[in-house]
Amino acid sequence: MSQPVRAPIDSGADSVPLIAHRARAASRELPKLLLKQRNDVLLAAAKAIEENAKRILEANAADCRAAEPAVKSGKMSAAMFARLRVKESGVAQMAAQIREVARMDDPLGRRLAATELDKGLVLHRESCPIGVIGVIFESRPDVVPQLASLALKSGNAVILKGGSEAAHTNEALVSIWRECLKRFPAVPLDSISLLQSRAAVLELLAMDHDVDLIIPRGSYELVRFIMEHSHIPVLGHGEGICHVYVDRAADLRKAVEIAYDAKVQYPAVCNAAETLLVDEAIARKFLPKAIAKLKEAEVEIRGCEKTMALLPKAGIVPATEQDWRTEYGDLILSIKVVSGVDEAIEHINRYGSHHTDAIVTEDSEAAKKFLNEVDSAGVFHNASTRFADGFRYGFGAEVGISTNKLHARGPMGLDGLTTYKYKLYGSGQTVAPYAKGAKKFKHRRLK
Amino acid sequence: MSQPVRAPIDSGADSVPLIAHRARAASRELPKLLLKQRNDVLLAAAKAIEENAKRILEANAADCRAAEPAVKSGKMSAAMFARLRVKESGVAQMAAQIREVARMDDPLGRRLAATELDKGLVLHRESCPIGVIGVIFESRPDVVPQLASLALKSGNAVILKGGSEAAHTNEALVSIWRECLKRFPAVPLDSISLLQSRAAVLELLAMDHDVDLIIPRGSYELVRFIMEHSHIPVLGHGEGICHVYVDRAADLRKAVEIAYDAKVQYPAVCNAAETLLVDEAIARKFLPKAIAKLKEAEVEIRGCEKTMALLPKAGIVPATEQDWRTEYGDLILSIKVVSGVDEAIEHINRYGSHHTDAIVTEDSEAAKKFLNEVDSAGVFHNASTRFADGFRYGFGAEVGISTNKLHARGPMGLDGLTTYKYKLYGSGQTVAPYAKGAKKFKHRRLK
Repeated sequence: MSQPVRAPIDSGADSVPLIAHRARAASRELPKLLLKQRNDVLLAAAKAIEENAKRILEANAADCRAAEPAVKSGKMSAAMFARLRVKESGVAQMAAQIREVARMDDPLGRRLAATELDKGLVLHRESCPIGVIGVIFESRPDVVPQLASLALKSGNAVILKGGSEAAHTNEALVSIWRECLKRFPAVPLDSISLLQSRAAVLELLAMDHDVDLIIPRGSYELVRFIMEHSHIPVLGHGEGICHVYVDRAADLRKAVEIAYDAKVQYPAVCNAAETLLVDEAIARKFLPKAIAKLKEAEVEIRGCEKTMALLPKAGIVPATEQDWRTEYGDLILSIKVVSGVDEAIEHINRYGSHHTDAIVTEDSEAAKKFLNEVDSAGVFHNASTRFADGFRYGFGAEVGISTNKLHARGPMGLDGLTTYKYKLYGSGQTVAPYAKGAKKFKHRRLK
Repeated sequence: MSQPVRAPIDSGADSVPLIAHRARAASRELPKLLLKQRNDVLLAAAKAIEENAKRILEANAADCRAAEPAVKSGKMSAAMFARLRVKESGVAQMAAQIREVARMDDPLGRRLAATELDKGLVLHRESCPIGVIGVIFESRPDVVPQLASLALKSGNAVILKGGSEAAHTNEALVSIWRECLKRFPAVPLDSISLLQSRAAVLELLAMDHDVDLIIPRGSYELVRFIMEHSHIPVLGHGEGICHVYVDRAADLRKAVEIAYDAKVQYPAVCNAAETLLVDEAIARKFLPKAIAKLKEAEVEIRGCEKTMALLPKAGIVPATEQDWRTEYGDLILSIKVVSGVDEAIEHINRYGSHHTDAIVTEDSEAAKKFLNEVDSAGVFHNASTRFADGFRYGFGAEVGISTNKLHARGPMGLDGLTTYKYKLYGSGQTVAPYAKGAKKFKHRRLK
C-alpha cells in the first residue's frame, strides 16, 4: 500500500485540554466568516475528499483488515463491519453531502424576532453559533465530513472522537480537511480536531469551560454513559421505541405498507418501529394481512393476548410487559390491540421513547388528536416512522436525532447547531426613567 | 388575625414522587386546552388574587414576623426582607402581571417551519409545551403568580419550591390559584403544586421521568447545587458579570449615564454592571466625569494600573485579577483601561459570564464588531445592561434569565417554556422507494 498510514492526530504531545482550548479560540474566529467564505471552504473540502479518494480507501482498507479477527470471532457484527467499510461510491457520496450543506441557507445572522421597546430602542433576536461542539460516535467514518461540514457552515468548532475501529479512516478524513483549511488563512485550523484514544473521552467530558455541547451518536449505553459523566449539555437520543398505530378508520392497504416499511426497511436504526398498535375495531380484518406480509420478511411477532386469540395458529410469541419497553433493533415486532386512539396515545406516552410515532387513519379528527397528544419529537399521519431523518426532512444532513425536549428536538441539522443572542440597539437609554414611570415601553412587534 | 394560616401543601401524605407523577398526568391534559380556556383561567386567577388580598397580606405578615429575628441578628439582609414583604400595591401588581400574560399571543401551535418533502408529504415544525417544569426560588413571593401564569399559558404543569422564609405567602398564593382552578373542570388541579420542605428539593431533582426541566432562581450557589445534583436539564443563570465598554467614539454624556444606570440603578441584580472597560483613547477625558458621577452614589471604584495612574487622588482601590471575575452585586465597580474594542471583546469573553454586555459608541462598525463577537446572551449598543429583563424585552414576564447557550438564552418568557414537534402529514408514504431511488424528495420550503 503506497501511502503510509499516519499516526492519529492526538497521539502527539497535544493534551485534550489544549485541544479544547484551541477549539475555543477557533470558535471566536469562526463567527467572523462570511457565508461565502464558509461555503468556499466546503466546496474545496468536497474536492479535496474526491482527490484523496485513494488515500481514504487505503486507510479504510487498513481499518477493515484490522477488524477481520473481530468479525471472525463474532465480536463485530456483519452490520457494523458494513458500516465501517467505505467504497468508492461512498467517497463520492461524502463529497456530494458536503456540497449539499454548502447549498443550504445561512443558519447564522437570521433575525428570529424584532421588537421596538421604545422610540430608538430596538431589540433583535438573532441566530449565532453555539461555540465548541464535541461529537462522540461509533463506526461509520462517513459522519466525519458530515459533521465537519455542518459545524463549519454553522460557525462552530468541532472536536470529533470516533470509534477505534475506524481510526485510520477518521484520521485520513480529518487530515484532508485540515490540509484543505490551510489554504484559507481566515479559517482557523483548530475548527476541527480529532481525538483517538478512549481515555480522551472522559477528559473531553470534563472540559465544561471550553466545550458547549456534547453530541453522542451511538448506542443507548454510550449516550447514558456520557450523560452521567458530564456537566456539559448533552443532546442525543436515548432509545428509539417508535410505534405505528392503525386506527379503525385506516386505509388497510396503506396501513400494511407503512407497518412493513417502518419495521423491515432498515430494522437496526432508531426510527424503525418496535410496536404496532391496532384498533380492536379493525384488528380481525387488518392483522392477518399485516402479519402475512411481515412474515414474508421473517419478522418475529410478539403479540398481546387479544392478538394471540385472534390468530392462534400464526406462530406468534406472547408479548410480556418488557416487550413494550424494548428497542429490538431487529426483525422483531410487538403487537398490541387497543380500544382506540385514546389507548394508543396513552400506551405511546407511557412506553415510548418520545422519538417518532405514526397513526394510520383516514379520520382527520383522530389524526389531529394523535398528533397533538402524543408527546414525541415526530408525530406522523399516514407515513412511515422511517422518514424521521435530517436528510429526509430537508436539512441536508444531520448531526444526530434528539429525544431531548430542550433546544433541538428530532433530527438536528444546521438549526440545531445554532443558538441566538439578543442585540439591543439604543441611543443612550437608561432603565431609571422606565423604573420610575417617567417613560413607558411600547413593545411593538416588528416584522 | 382572622384567617388561620394553613398547613403547607406538601406537609400531608403526598410524597414528592406522587406530586411529580400527578403533575405529569396534568401535563398530558394541558395541551388540549384552547387559548381561550387558558386565558379565562388567568383572568379568573387575577381576580381571585385581588379578592383574596387580605388573606395574602395576612400570610405575608406571618412570614415577615417570623423573619424578624433573622433580620435583627443580621442573618437576613434588609434587601432580602424587602423582597419578602408584600404590600397592597404588590397584590395589585401580581394581578396586573397575570392579566399581562393573558394578553400575550398564544405560544402554542405556532408553525415554525413547513416543508413539502414530496407530493402529499408535508412536514410542519410546531411549538408545543415542554411538559412538567420545576422551579426552585428564594424569597420574592410575587414570582408565584408570575410562574403560574406563564406555565399555564404555555400549557406546562409546574411544581414550585419556594424559600422557607416565604412559606405562608407562597402557600396562600398557590391555594388561591388551585381554588380558582376548581371552577374550570377541564383544567387539572395538579397543573400547579407547591413543595415546602428543604428535603423535597433533592427528591424533586431525582424525578427525571416526571420532570422535564428545572429552573433555579436564586443565588449562584443554589444554581450550582442544582446543576450538580440532577440529571434533569437545568436552565438558569450562573453569574451575572456584565460589562459596559466605553469606546473611543463614544458620546461621553451617554456613556456616563449608561455606566451610572448599569451600576447604580439596582446593584443587587444579575444584569447590573460589574466592570467598566474604557478605551485608552478617551480614558483621560471620560474617567474623571464617570467617577465623579459614580462617587455621588458612593460607588467604590477598583481600578487597573492605568486607571490609578490617570486618577491617583480619586481614592481608587487597586483591582486584582480576581476583581474581573467577581459579581459584586453591590455598589462596587471595577474599571479597566483597554487598547480598544478588540481588547474589550477579549476581556469580556474571557472574564464575563455571557449574560449581558454593552458598548457605548457612535461608531457603527465598532458596535457591529462588538455585538457580533461578544459571546453573550445580550449584546447592547448605547443602552444600559439593566434592560436585560423579560418584562422590558416585552415578554410580559419572565421565568428567569438563562446564560445557557442551549434552548433559551437570556430572559425566558413564554417561548422559553415551549419546545416543538415535527408533524408529518402523508398519504401512505413509505421510505423504501426513496431509499431505492425510485422516488426523489422535493424539499420545497413552504411559507
